[in-house]
Amino acid sequence: MLVVKIGGAAGNNMDTVCEDLAKLVRSGQEAVLVHGGSEETNAVSEKLGHPPKFITSPSGFTSRFTDRETLEIFAMVTSGKINTILVERLQKLGVNAFGLSGVDGRMMQAKRKEAVRAVENGRVRLLHDDHTGTIQAVDAPLLHMLIRAGLTPVVAPLAISPEGVALNVDADRAAAMIAGALKAESLVILTNVPGLMRRFPDESTLMPKIERSKLEEALKFAEGRMKKKVLGAGEALGEGVQRVIFADSRIPAPISSALAGKGTVIS
Amino acid sequence: MLVVKIGGAAGNNMDTVCEDLAKLVRSGQEAVLVHGGSEETNAVSEKLGHPPKFITSPSGFTSRFTDRETLEIFAMVTSGKINTILVERLQKLGVNAFGLSGVDGRMMQAKRKEAVRAVENGRVRLLHDDHTGTIQAVDAPLLHMLIRAGLTPVVAPLAISPEGVALNVDADRAAAMIAGALKAESLVILTNVPGLMRRFPDESTLMPKIERSKLEEALKFAEGRMKKKVLGAGEALGEGVQRVIFADSRIPAPISSALAGKGTVIS
Repeated sequence: MLVVKIGGAAGNNMDTVCEDLAKLVRSGQEAVLVHGGSEETNAVSEKLGHPPKFITSPSGFTSRFTDRETLEIFAMVTSGKINTILVERLQKLGVNAFGLSGVDGRMMQAKRKEAVRAVENGRVRLLHDDHTGTIQAVDAPLLHMLIRAGLTPVVAPLAISPEGVALNVDADRAAAMIAGALKAESLVILTNVPGLMRRFPDESTLMPKIERSKLEEALKFAEGRMKKKVLGAGEALGEGVQRVIFADSRIPAPISSALAGKGTVIS
Repeated sequence: MLVVKIGGAAGNNMDTVCEDLAKLVRSGQEAVLVHGGSEETNAVSEKLGHPPKFITSPSGFTSRFTDRETLEIFAMVTSGKINTILVERLQKLGVNAFGLSGVDGRMMQAKRKEAVRAVENGRVRLLHDDHTGTIQAVDAPLLHMLIRAGLTPVVAPLAISPEGVALNVDADRAAAMIAGALKAESLVILTNVPGLMRRFPDESTLMPKIERSKLEEALKFAEGRMKKKVLGAGEALGEGVQRVIFADSRIPAPISSALAGKGTVIS
């Protein structure tokens, strides 16, 4: 079992990722594709007159503040547009792709953050009405049922709370939790950089291998969104995934290259 | 098996429909919910700077002209927003709803209209680049698999062509084809009117019963979008559905009332 995460940010090449994934699936590889969509959500939010709002937590993580209207725009863009386009592209390549989000059949259950702490002008504020969640459980039997039926799940980063509220979740952590639940051999996290670098963005400082015991240390090299990817890698390994690979989506055959060891391999 | 179609037009009451459906499902009824989304697609298209375009065929049917950009907006609104909100609402009501469109796992296969004929200023023109389709086949085993797993499918009106192109399909015809493929006992088509009227919009001329042999005749009373609903009813009955009911979504317990015979019952 292989789980692949593709970013939504500019520079990610969906074409080569889909072609490579299709080749692997046609050769018998079982796979789940997880995608993001933050950047396009920002663009659509602007156009719809509801510009995105980002907050920084006291511990330094940046994330989207998701009021109800933003959640619905996020669902439109990720679950409606990006997901449909990925499924369509894979179908064209002969893969029986099947799109879903974590809301469908409660595939991903998440705990809603009742209030989020955000640093604004050096002061910590408490923000309510956020529709963001931390994934607590993945329904592995549901995904296995789809895979057994010959389908390749394509997952949009929405989850549902126990109360039945749709939530925006981090796509890297979603991919990690899914890989863990499915006991995947490999989790490939594709980005628009070659992997984790000791001195970002100097690509000559790429770290080709990280032992899982050294992951905490590696966290200090992670910039911005790479922090969540490193945290997700730790979670996935903790759940029984054999290796996590941070790899470049911009090169030919990006998934096969990652599986062959190109990028940052954490195991 | 029960198939319910809910319209996307203003005046349709999603709350009472979901509550009534939840009650039926909790009491053991197997069901599929199919929805539209035209009106909201128009609103979002306007906001995104790509206003909707409607065409009238030489035989008098009005439909959306769907270029690629419109298709993606249609997917965002129907599959991303409306579908997610319906699934969420049903989940809150204790129904394990599962959203999908016909693109997912090729659940609905459609023939793309290579070119569409449209009447403009009294002249017939041929328009290309339309992303609209006529449903040819519904994957009943895929829907049965979901239903057997305790899920209630919620279907967005997108289908896929044999070439793997996503297409906008008419939600009424989609509901009819799904009801036919599942050999549903009843297909309930909810609208913001009480049923088919002999003299629209005079509700005192509601036709409570139509025999299937008289459906052709009834077509002449159908105004605007009601024409497609009547055509869909004929298709569904032809595929083995026992009865089709056009009913009012604005009343309490709209589905149960329809099943009890309120509306226009065609059998």
